[in-house]
Amino acid sequence: MRATKTSRDEAWLEVALSDDLALLADHAHCEKKAAASAFMLITRYPDEPGLVAPMVELAREELEHFGEVFAVLGARGGRLGKDGGDPYVQALLAHVRSGKAHHALIDRLLVAALIEARSFERLRLLGERHPDPALAELFARFARSEARHGAIFVQLARQVGERHGEDRPTIDARLAELTAHETAIVEALPLRCAIH
Amino acid sequence: MRATKTSRDEAWLEVALSDDLALLADHAHCEKKAAASAFMLITRYPDEPGLVAPMVELAREELEHFGEVFAVLGARGGRLGKDGGDPYVQALLAHVRSGKAHHALIDRLLVAALIEARSFERLRLLGERHPDPALAELFARFARSEARHGAIFVQLARQVGERHGEDRPTIDARLAELTAHETAIVEALPLRCAIH
Repeated sequence: MRATKTSRDEAWLEVALSDDLALLADHAHCEKKAAASAFMLITRYPDEPGLVAPMVELAREELEHFGEVFAVLGARGGRLGKDGGDPYVQALLAHVRSGKAHHALIDRLLVAALIEARSFERLRLLGERHPDPALAELFARFARSEARHGAIFVQLARQVGERHGEDRPTIDARLAELTAHETAIVEALPLRCAIH
Repeated sequence: MRATKTSRDEAWLEVALSDDLALLADHAHCEKKAAASAFMLITRYPDEPGLVAPMVELAREELEHFGEVFAVLGARGGRLGKDGGDPYVQALLAHVRSGKAHHALIDRLLVAALIEARSFERLRLLGERHPDPALAELFARFARSEARHGAIFVQLARQVGERHGEDRPTIDARLAELTAHETAIVEALPLRCAIH
């Protein structure tokens, strides 16, 4: 899956390219939070069939990415510092349904897929347009991982749906709803020197 | 480092061998919490020199172990279920000093070293004495990792001490104090079909 292209991509790119250290620190935080999110799913849904193994693999990969971005940041004289939070992710999570347990899980998986898709889009742009070849290579490489992760989350959401009597069109319709919210969120939020 | 041998090791082994699925579920939870603990150190102390890289590696390794134990548990018909908590670890953490920030970090690292040392001792015993060869191999293999991890944590605690004007004998004296507490905790707690 791909994130819906928004009119703000070019404007975002200009802001994102304005401060390499701030961007790398945010990227490191994103990778760390992606690992934490996979970890949370393992902890909260240990008995959901087929969920734990891919989430363990994903958490390990995101941690590896975090370690690499952290090292690049340090080598360039940057510091990670405290995570200031991600208004984009927070706005998306506000759409997770809280009624039925399987709806909360399906929505969390679909939101994760959307975050991965948006991260793919943004990292791909950085990979194509960043003037520093070493950073361009790093962003392009990580973009490819995010694309793969998005597909894993959509697949898992469909599996959870199937187990609870919600067929694939139902899950895909919910994904379309959340995608519309996601696009609106990206358009509405102020631009930041950050992945999202 | 090695945990102090306690008079309860044999009695513990008898209880631990009484229920393979309960023991595996507890072991899986231990690996998951070890990963979570390394992750917490990364999140809380991102700017502590030399801390992040070994903790990323450790978290990734513990997650891999968790995934393996989780798979063995599932293949044998067990379920992970909720984590009931670990009174041993909770009792140890109660000794972490809260006054100075570097004392809290040093103590957390030394407590982690002690948990790894005790886990090594227990997994080694299971590796030698478990009647099921597949489980004996798994426990023996993981025991070797825990031994290596214990040394990493002691080394990190000494590094943090050095940065804050506390020399190696000071850190080693604190380790000796915590080791005495650890031994007393193991002796005092009821035996459980669990790693600790």
